[in-house]
Amino acid sequence: MGQIRELTIQSHERCEFIKLDRELASLVTESGVEEGVCYVYVPHTSAGLTINEGADPTVMQDIGAKLAELVPREGPYRHADSERNADSHIKATLTGSSVVVLIRNGEPVLGTWQSIFFCEFDGPRRRQVLVKITDG
Amino acid sequence: MGQIRELTIQSHERCEFIKLDRELASLVTESGVEEGVCYVYVPHTSAGLTINEGADPTVMQDIGAKLAELVPREGPYRHADSERNADSHIKATLTGSSVVVLIRNGEPVLGTWQSIFFCEFDGPRRRQVLVKITDG
Amino acid sequence: MGQIRELTIQSHERCEFIKLDRELASLVTESGVEEGVCYVYVPHTSAGLTINEGADPTVMQDIGAKLAELVPREGPYRHADSERNADSHIKATLTGSSVVVLIRNGEPVLGTWQSIFFCEFDGPRRRQVLVKITDG
Repeated sequence: MGQIRELTIQSHERCEFIKLDRELASLVTESGVEEGVCYVYVPHTSAGLTINEGADPTVMQDIGAKLAELVPREGPYRHADSERNADSHIKATLTGSSVVVLIRNGEPVLGTWQSIFFCEFDGPRRRQVLVKITDG
Repeated sequence: MGQIRELTIQSHERCEFIKLDRELASLVTESGVEEGVCYVYVPHTSAGLTINEGADPTVMQDIGAKLAELVPREGPYRHADSERNADSHIKATLTGSSVVVLIRNGEPVLGTWQSIFFCEFDGPRRRQVLVKITDG
Repeated sequence: MGQIRELTIQSHERCEFIKLDRELASLVTESGVEEGVCYVYVPHTSAGLTINEGADPTVMQDIGAKLAELVPREGPYRHADSERNADSHIKATLTGSSVVVLIRNGEPVLGTWQSIFFCEFDGPRRRQVLVKITDG
């Protein structure tokens, strides 16, 4: 039950928001947990997670554009010389590396407009997302 | 015990920070949990949660002002045409949709100056906050 | 097991990122928990926590520099008169007051490049970090 599951994600853009709702709902169903907590965790340092509007894709586009404006790819970064992805790391800290979703009646509890997004800030890449579901 | 409780919140401003300390402490007491974890979750996409200083109200005013400066209401947003609240969604991602508070001796463990704030970014509205308390 | 442990941290700079990996791994080992969750919580309002790259120190330097650029120490802050640390509080909200780390086979699960950082935004100071480890 408390076992960690891994999702593999293939991003296709440098900055991309990928909805995980369906995969997470499946993992919750498979776990058999009726009341509990679902932890979603990104083991990367240039990607994050966020929960925001999933119905209108312009919302996540605006979030990506604002992050790019506040944290442009080119900057006076020290990390720039090596990998040129300092902006990706900074964005990862601003969004965060995990989200918590509550489980009720065997389903993740999301608000009407909410979706759970993997935030790719340095794609395209193959990525992992860790998911742990606990009962109680 | 692990049952999800719902708080209803009425905001009165477009951007407003509403202290939840008292309500959360009551829910922890009612739960009877002595040692555990309290998950606070906002099922909205234009509101968030944060833990910051509750003693001096100018701190949250400064946070609101800085967020408004970094993410102004008017901008070249794509989501603007429909609801004109793109800024609210962006601020929700910057603050986050949940906070976790530890429980010790039947009480939420908060630092001396800490309060838990519901962050309204698109009020005034009637909002929900979900609270789950687990033992262990 | 679910008991809250406290780490004491002495920061030496006003803005400083202090790696907690070793201390947290020790606490997980001591707890004897094989599969579970580790909650790390900062009971302060001018400090935060983040998970980001620990191998190349320029990454955290860039994060600190970008936060200082977005939220300069001097600003038209209301909280400025009293303590002159409004920026510290704002940065604390942008990073967040807690992180969650999953535990597998008796160890915190971190990605290859990930470290857990205490984010000092108003040092130098003596600080506390609360750690709770749950089984399941």
